Amino acid sequence: MTYCVAMRLNSGLVFLSDSRTNAGVDHVGTFRKMSVFENPGDRVMVLLTAGNLSISQSVRQTIAEHLSPDGTSIWTASSMYEAAQIVGDAIRMVHKRDAKSLEQFGIDFNVSMIFGGQIRGERCRLFQMYSAGNFIESHDENPYFQIGESKYGKPIIDRVVSPATPLDEAAKCALISMDSTLRSNISVGFPLDLLLYDKDSLSIKRFVTIDEKNQYFQMIHSIWGKQLKSVFEGIADPVWNAAPEATTNVLSSISNQNQPVRVQPPPSLTRVDDAVAPLQTLAQQSGQQQQH
Amino acid sequence: MTYCVAMRLNSGLVFLSDSRTNAGVDHVGTFRKMSVFENPGDRVMVLLTAGNLSISQSVRQTIAEHLSPDGTSIWTASSMYEAAQIVGDAIRMVHKRDAKSLEQFGIDFNVSMIFGGQIRGERCRLFQMYSAGNFIESHDENPYFQIGESKYGKPIIDRVVSPATPLDEAAKCALISMDSTLRSNISVGFPLDLLLYDKDSLSIKRFVTIDEKNQYFQMIHSIWGKQLKSVFEGIADPVWNAAPEATTNVLSSISNQNQPVRVQPPPSLTRVDDAVAPLQTLAQQSGQQQQH
Repeated sequence: MTYCVAMRLNSGLVFLSDSRTNAGVDHVGTFRKMSVFENPGDRVMVLLTAGNLSISQSVRQTIAEHLSPDGTSIWTASSMYEAAQIVGDAIRMVHKRDAKSLEQFGIDFNVSMIFGGQIRGERCRLFQMYSAGNFIESHDENPYFQIGESKYGKPIIDRVVSPATPLDEAAKCALISMDSTLRSNISVGFPLDLLLYDKDSLSIKRFVTIDEKNQYFQMIHSIWGKQLKSVFEGIADPVWNAAPEATTNVLSSISNQNQPVRVQPPPSLTRVDDAVAPLQTLAQQSGQQQQH
Repeated sequence: MTYCVAMRLNSGLVFLSDSRTNAGVDHVGTFRKMSVFENPGDRVMVLLTAGNLSISQSVRQTIAEHLSPDGTSIWTASSMYEAAQIVGDAIRMVHKRDAKSLEQFGIDFNVSMIFGGQIRGERCRLFQMYSAGNFIESHDENPYFQIGESKYGKPIIDRVVSPATPLDEAAKCALISMDSTLRSNISVGFPLDLLLYDKDSLSIKRFVTIDEKNQYFQMIHSIWGKQLKSVFEGIADPVWNAAPEATTNVLSSISNQNQPVRVQPPPSLTRVDDAVAPLQTLAQQSGQQQQH
């Protein structure tokens, strides 16, 4: 599997990807899932991919070579929307070529992508691409996209990221999100590619490949875990069966007792706290009752 | 969907379930997913269910009525292992009755369950049941099971729960795990059923149904979010292009510059920072190049 996340903030874009691939547990590999299309001063575009690796690679190759019917390429598209259409076209071309053959082997045409960047004269834009070649664009209420194993690392992003989040802080959040995913899912792995794009720079100035030994990532990994534990320990335990006037940490109140959904034992089953019957007798009674 | 989690600790068992069901977004309902089988002084067993609701309900009904070939019921099983076999048998009976008809409508026989408790004379035990009626048991290296939307709430459990965790602290962790899930996934919803079972008590003493207004849950929801944010803000931002001798928060070093995977523009594409060519020209040049 894969975990990739990208964020579109007021100050620019953040892209983060892992690099583990696998075909079964005994065929684990490392492939970079982030590709950069850069023409400094004119455009920077970044593609993150998840799904079937052969499809992703073919799509990337096709994007690099593909021209739309009017001769436009990803290098000449006048807007990110047009560039996203070219990416979508590339997905459809690979689908046309490969999907039927894959289907004969019971393999879905499975690919998902995040595509974002900036073209001179336009703002930063970020898209999520689907297998069908269609796509959606991020907006201020939903400033990020994830692909692959997205769930482990989603809560922390939901809690801290908004369009106003500074770029470095958003990168920190993406790395924590990745750390949680790495910890809980073995199909996501090092090295990580992290790219921060400063709006209007129209060139790549901050990119790093992060391995297990990266000092900042190690710090995040250990500090975040430790601090989370200390916050956790600092939260009071619940109070059960609190007096009606209690107002602190009340999980349940003596005046408001809940009952679980119970599956009742058959009436003939003597309650052990009423009369201690040997288990054998209980079995027989219950057996008789249940056969009614 | 569903989120249920159960933990087997040295001091007892924790069970937590949500209660949202849905058949498409316009058919959302509330069904309790926790069922209790209690014969005080003799046995306490708890069943959490996820998957197709009709299957879960049929299985629960079947468990209540089912006798194994030798006349044993869930009320008379001499061990939790035997009880889990009865639950497995019940799943298989419902499969035999319903699976073919469901298949005709393209519906998988999809159910997963957590089943745990204690029978007098035995320790607390916890099982995860599969659709095929087979099951696995928790152990000290893996003291918890989740079913349904398990990923959002997994990282926090992985970070803080071990068999030595006290019961109330584990309940707190389960609630935080649920809070993260509720925040990130709309298919999981209130009310929540929380049951804490103290080892060897052989009866239910702590159960609560938690709604949006529950004071303790509200406190966890707001404190956890706030403290997480403050821990997040307390972590230093990364240092880019640090000097070789730097050792603090170093994300990338000036002496070790990484490069992203680049898809190269065609050689004919004049770099805008070398010479500002009108876009139209770029398009033509690129178009010609790409057709080679």
